[in-house]
Amino acid sequence: MRSILVLGAGRSSSALISYLLEKAPGQSWKVTVGDVSEAAARERVGNSASGKAIAFDVKKEGSETVIAAHDLVISVLPAMYHPLVAKFCLKHRKHLLTASYVSQDMHALNAEAKNAGLLFLNECGLDPGIDHMSAMQVIDRLRSEGADLYSFESFTGGLIAPETDPANPWRYKFTWNPRNVVMAGQGTAKFLQEGQFKYIPYQQLFKRVTPVEVTGYGRYEGYANRDSLGYRALYGLQDIKTMLRGTLRNEGFCAAWDVLVQLGCTDDSYSMEGVSEMTHRSFLNSFTGYHATRKLEEKIAKQTGVTQDGPELAKLRWTGLFDETPVGLEEGTPAQVLEHILNKKWKLAPDDKDMIVMWHRFRYAKDGRGQETQATLVAKGDDSVRTAMAKTVGLPLGIAAKLLLEGKIKSRGVVVPVTKEFYDPILAELKTLGVELEEK
Amino acid sequence: MRSILVLGAGRSSSALISYLLEKAPGQSWKVTVGDVSEAAARERVGNSASGKAIAFDVKKEGSETVIAAHDLVISVLPAMYHPLVAKFCLKHRKHLLTASYVSQDMHALNAEAKNAGLLFLNECGLDPGIDHMSAMQVIDRLRSEGADLYSFESFTGGLIAPETDPANPWRYKFTWNPRNVVMAGQGTAKFLQEGQFKYIPYQQLFKRVTPVEVTGYGRYEGYANRDSLGYRALYGLQDIKTMLRGTLRNEGFCAAWDVLVQLGCTDDSYSMEGVSEMTHRSFLNSFTGYHATRKLEEKIAKQTGVTQDGPELAKLRWTGLFDETPVGLEEGTPAQVLEHILNKKWKLAPDDKDMIVMWHRFRYAKDGRGQETQATLVAKGDDSVRTAMAKTVGLPLGIAAKLLLEGKIKSRGVVVPVTKEFYDPILAELKTLGVELEEK
Repeated sequence: MRSILVLGAGRSSSALISYLLEKAPGQSWKVTVGDVSEAAARERVGNSASGKAIAFDVKKEGSETVIAAHDLVISVLPAMYHPLVAKFCLKHRKHLLTASYVSQDMHALNAEAKNAGLLFLNECGLDPGIDHMSAMQVIDRLRSEGADLYSFESFTGGLIAPETDPANPWRYKFTWNPRNVVMAGQGTAKFLQEGQFKYIPYQQLFKRVTPVEVTGYGRYEGYANRDSLGYRALYGLQDIKTMLRGTLRNEGFCAAWDVLVQLGCTDDSYSMEGVSEMTHRSFLNSFTGYHATRKLEEKIAKQTGVTQDGPELAKLRWTGLFDETPVGLEEGTPAQVLEHILNKKWKLAPDDKDMIVMWHRFRYAKDGRGQETQATLVAKGDDSVRTAMAKTVGLPLGIAAKLLLEGKIKSRGVVVPVTKEFYDPILAELKTLGVELEEK
Repeated sequence: MRSILVLGAGRSSSALISYLLEKAPGQSWKVTVGDVSEAAARERVGNSASGKAIAFDVKKEGSETVIAAHDLVISVLPAMYHPLVAKFCLKHRKHLLTASYVSQDMHALNAEAKNAGLLFLNECGLDPGIDHMSAMQVIDRLRSEGADLYSFESFTGGLIAPETDPANPWRYKFTWNPRNVVMAGQGTAKFLQEGQFKYIPYQQLFKRVTPVEVTGYGRYEGYANRDSLGYRALYGLQDIKTMLRGTLRNEGFCAAWDVLVQLGCTDDSYSMEGVSEMTHRSFLNSFTGYHATRKLEEKIAKQTGVTQDGPELAKLRWTGLFDETPVGLEEGTPAQVLEHILNKKWKLAPDDKDMIVMWHRFRYAKDGRGQETQATLVAKGDDSVRTAMAKTVGLPLGIAAKLLLEGKIKSRGVVVPVTKEFYDPILAELKTLGVELEEK
């Protein structure tokens, strides 16, 4: 009997825990789910005979003892807690799996973990996670075929399924942390294009999009993520000429979102005055110049370079941003007020299905000519709880745990799943679970 | 014999020290100038019999003893040192005068200073300083005449004189800290317009300018400063409908500067790659999308919404930004690289004259109808050392010191010169020194 400890019972853990509990009888596993809310942990475990729910707070005494009592730890806690969890895992010689980016603190534990014979696997979710694995599977194959890769572009987005909310012109709802969506892109995006270092500031980010067509699904667009440059070393592509990673949205999303960015509605650096009396419309109005007679719509169009009857303001209108509806907050930054307003229309309804779209484009020289391969992954959720997001974040962690306990993973130390040992079996099993990459 | 201690011999201190040394024999003053560089202090003092230069470092032992040995301290050190200077002044019961904004730390000393019978006068330079005094003189007079002030707008700029560098299309050079000029406006400007709270983010700041016409000098434009709202309380204008303070530039400056802002050239948050091989032109190119055939000028025009042969790109061209000239730095953030490039053309030549323009517009109801008063101050420098900036920052401090030593200032505690006791005598003497406000 092997014991697995899952830390965190938030919404990203549902598919992971279901997977583990389903495999548990056949694998002789015991699965403990710990959360600060024991009730939340209990809900995830349900009436499974292989599962146990406990109250767990990593900052409280006793958390170390709990970790010491298990064979393997999977943490879906916020990333800030992972260094502490890792410290306990190191002390009690437990493997640790997370879907979070490798922080400096985590990276610093590499030698110690390796010496202790432990695997600290990180970035094993969707993005980061499936993006690494699916890209590296293609990259390694192309290399083995003698291809010389000169361009890699990759975009991933958490969207809604085509059948969900058909009247929604954004083709978007909050399927993940709303605050992160509102704040996305603040800072500067850095990437490499045709051998030139390129920088896109926030004020240009949603203007400079890459069009993406996914056969059978339609037209999308991608905006650049903060740092694409670091992926050259991670993927062993030091001499590549174009390296661009980004976020995918439906066509037309970015131009409309850019209106809000240009106005300053996503600013989180100061508290607005008079929020308690604010309406959606007066919120927008505070970002425009005063004019005695000019309508708000006209001012915004003029100020941001769109047309009054164009698709950008139509999206804002659909969202209710021009309505004299009270905001309903006592105070807030622009970003907080905007999130609150958007949530009235962008909250996932119980039967809404989310949809993950991941798209890679590889360009390379082979057999003396330039060629191109595209790889696409589309995963749909079942409803607002069993989301595609939860599946694609959680299943790679569950599969990695299984492989590790079966002795099929030899890597040790602080690791990211970019090698064959991870991507072949994990992607193969994901395929049987309906999460599949298609190449063309 | 009274003794004055001036801390700091940087370029903002020249007019102040000249003023004090000139008055010293008649007033029976001894003037000590202290600077970390004794040579710099000596240069300011020259061969004046009333002056003495010393090495002074506020963070080093002995600085307290120096302060204790004088009757009054004027500090033109960087504002961050003022709490420490103030602490010593409090302990040894010395008055303190500065041209810096009142910090939280300084504000906290108000009661103690008042109880000790000390004046800690701050914001007594140009901006802040003459702006407060000139505005309050008009505001108090209008009030005494029964006017109901509903709008106050005020813009100040450090520019170049019309006869300086006539071919320079920006009508601008660095007359003050270049880094502050490059970074200006980052953050969000907050103000009040017709009773509505208004917010302008950085990406809109140089687009939403206020046109200003100064009779006899021409057309200018102003962009909003970070926080205009706090001035309502300071000026006793709690119920005012429009309150806007900002920075003045020559007409056309802001549209050209906005091209650099939109591209991301003023970003100070990351180090660029390959700066040592960078040219002016490749610096600009890194903020544009790659295109196989399109010229840089065309890409920038398209990306920022200006025309290729318009005045905005003409200004960038004049500055050499499109040239294949090496930048000449080993590393840097975009803001640092931009400052370095601009300094090649914007550095003040020895005979260049700077020019300060300050402009206030008061709108009010009086005698049953809406009326308007404008007040303008224009001050020109003599050359690149005896600048208008140094005069307008330094002379108010010098005059305030004289008034205080003559017993003509009764205010005590942490004070800003917004009352008649300060503005009447200081503005009157400034007028005799050629710094005069004209009303119309």
